[in-house]
Amino acid sequence: MTQLEAARKDIFTEQMKIVAKEENVDRNYLIKAIAKGKIVIPSNKNHTNLHPYGIGGDLRIKVNANIGTSLRNIDLQKELDKVEMIENLNAESVMDLSTAGDLDNIRKEIIKNTSMMVGTVPIYQILTENSEKISNIDIEDILHTIDKHGKQGVDFITVHCGIKKEALSLIKDRTMGIVSRGGSFISRWMKEKEEENPLYEYYDEILKIAQQYDMTLSLGDGLRPGAIVDATDRAQLHELNVLGELTERARESGVQVMVEGPGHVPLNEIKRNMDLQKEICNNAPFYVLGPLTTDIAPGYDHIVGAIGGSLAAYFGASFLCYVTPAEHLRLPTIEDVKAGVVASKIAAHTADLAKGNQKAWDMDQKYAKMRHDFDWEGMFKNSIEMEKPYRYRKESTNFDTEECSMCGDFCALKMLEKELE
Amino acid sequence: MTQLEAARKDIFTEQMKIVAKEENVDRNYLIKAIAKGKIVIPSNKNHTNLHPYGIGGDLRIKVNANIGTSLRNIDLQKELDKVEMIENLNAESVMDLSTAGDLDNIRKEIIKNTSMMVGTVPIYQILTENSEKISNIDIEDILHTIDKHGKQGVDFITVHCGIKKEALSLIKDRTMGIVSRGGSFISRWMKEKEEENPLYEYYDEILKIAQQYDMTLSLGDGLRPGAIVDATDRAQLHELNVLGELTERARESGVQVMVEGPGHVPLNEIKRNMDLQKEICNNAPFYVLGPLTTDIAPGYDHIVGAIGGSLAAYFGASFLCYVTPAEHLRLPTIEDVKAGVVASKIAAHTADLAKGNQKAWDMDQKYAKMRHDFDWEGMFKNSIEMEKPYRYRKESTNFDTEECSMCGDFCALKMLEKELE
Repeated sequence: MTQLEAARKDIFTEQMKIVAKEENVDRNYLIKAIAKGKIVIPSNKNHTNLHPYGIGGDLRIKVNANIGTSLRNIDLQKELDKVEMIENLNAESVMDLSTAGDLDNIRKEIIKNTSMMVGTVPIYQILTENSEKISNIDIEDILHTIDKHGKQGVDFITVHCGIKKEALSLIKDRTMGIVSRGGSFISRWMKEKEEENPLYEYYDEILKIAQQYDMTLSLGDGLRPGAIVDATDRAQLHELNVLGELTERARESGVQVMVEGPGHVPLNEIKRNMDLQKEICNNAPFYVLGPLTTDIAPGYDHIVGAIGGSLAAYFGASFLCYVTPAEHLRLPTIEDVKAGVVASKIAAHTADLAKGNQKAWDMDQKYAKMRHDFDWEGMFKNSIEMEKPYRYRKESTNFDTEECSMCGDFCALKMLEKELE
Repeated sequence: MTQLEAARKDIFTEQMKIVAKEENVDRNYLIKAIAKGKIVIPSNKNHTNLHPYGIGGDLRIKVNANIGTSLRNIDLQKELDKVEMIENLNAESVMDLSTAGDLDNIRKEIIKNTSMMVGTVPIYQILTENSEKISNIDIEDILHTIDKHGKQGVDFITVHCGIKKEALSLIKDRTMGIVSRGGSFISRWMKEKEEENPLYEYYDEILKIAQQYDMTLSLGDGLRPGAIVDATDRAQLHELNVLGELTERARESGVQVMVEGPGHVPLNEIKRNMDLQKEICNNAPFYVLGPLTTDIAPGYDHIVGAIGGSLAAYFGASFLCYVTPAEHLRLPTIEDVKAGVVASKIAAHTADLAKGNQKAWDMDQKYAKMRHDFDWEGMFKNSIEMEKPYRYRKESTNFDTEECSMCGDFCALKMLEKELE
């Protein structure tokens, strides 16, 4: 039984118990929301060391970080170091996007070494193993790889099932065309083979595999806009409509399902995008990459993504995929990964506060008290990231004084204290 | 005549001509908006090398960076280096918040060395020169210092005229009390002297000085909330109401005026704060610090401020004061200043796009085309900041190839190109 099927039978699973307790929501709320597909708990039956997290509804916003090898960076230990750091920064999920090396072993080691949710994009493995001749790939390869990921314990997979042949003509007017690797591959495959998207054609087969392992589907947005000027266009909306249909079919099959979203979106269109997705996908948890609110700040896309992510999560997205400073430039280093996770955690927490999450408010209340009391140790420990503030204070010239070196003797709090004496 | 007085007489000043041309707005729109006080052009008659910028209305969002010496960091050249870098990053304004060294000379040198708008907080100088005995300070000292700043060519000054004695009782329930240095000083002065705020009492005298130099007043928010849990409280709103009154009085005296705003504000309260200010201050340009959407991310407050600043500017703020990663921790280094300016420029541009500013859209349109064409040199040159993306690409392993090392051989654009061939 999947979490969705259990919820429909009013069974309160171990995973649900943990989520309900940690998020301080009651049993009935959680079961009903899971039964409706509004909340998912990605938790593959074979991922035995998983700490389960719920995504969606009134739950806290969750954060995912992407890692993975590439042709010129094949070092398993480096990836495992990233995983450890990501977990220490309290992200809830990691996606292994490796495209080089022994992919099965890399995935196995990542799953073994973390209690975070693990996601993958099986198409990347298929693509890596067939990069010379894409048209050789057939549905058997795809299903075989998806099944392998399920068997290994992957909690959720991105599958680009929503790109249909008829949508390809809609991207002609775009400046950036297709920027999703999965989307680009599928469209090339469709052109070369002159056939419909196999992930759409054989969606029922994918559902069977997902159901078997309770592997959550994350319906990829292969036609997401790759530039502000391409945002919220017909191609994107065409795919979103298909994702709405596929969401319903997943639920009917007892398969947990999330929907992925854009991409590059100007700030004023973020609410509309969230509303559309909720409407069309009947409140399925929305998993967004960014969104990026401008294209012109490479090197700082973690900041741009935090702006878009805060607003997206406030308006309805439930799961934020991080963006690192290396986006659009290079494969992220471990420092880039850190910067990306921190920025996304800030966005998630910003949205939690804005949505009135009590635990989030308690954190800021406690923090304000510590700041008022100059309790620096307490602040470091309770910061989203503690190494940088500690270092900044240590490097400043008056580590031994209560106030910081920004205002020094003219500290407003100090002056006020005198005034209140 | 001030810009405001000129506009009322339908005079199209040299400053207005430059603003109208650069912002691509027509003469009548600009003159009317300035006459109504909706737009200001801070441009002191004695700041001869100023490049004038308009703030407010439909104009592009502007960015200010704070610099200045403090007791343990007195190095004029360091501050001038910051000024040069800030200008190179296309910020429009710098505030000199120096509190140590030869303040008059530092200010003179900064004004001489930049064509950006220069702002100050005269109270800081008064406080620095009278730190031993605050109650010794009288209105003559204050007016004398304000006049000195005007004479030197300061384009706008922050004056904390809106804190009234009756408001002090309202801050008792706060966790963080007062976090504005100016606000803290004024309230301490009022307590010690048992008198009303001299900046309020002698506001007409301040207006006379401001009118003489066409020095724009930036009405400080000394009671701005210093923590999320203190946001949008009675003390803040009490001061805002007074600022509304003072805005009208400035306009009646022909003095250009802006209003400063919070501070620490949860994301969901930002729109309400902007709407309130516009209503109460009759559309005076709103100059915001941050706002910060959470307290728990010291070391990363430039990101937090960019989140709040984007939304504030989209909902009506016109002028963003940067926040650096050093906020709440230490006096910012030149690297911190850079990070702060970049984050604020991202926020400003995000809002410009969201508001439909045509020049902003042209920038992103052009950039998307360059990204599609792998025109890396073009991208570097047209990025909000170019050094970091250049370094990132240079450090990556395939500087000689078209695509970046993030997706490498699986570049979506490349795959798509093949598909379209």
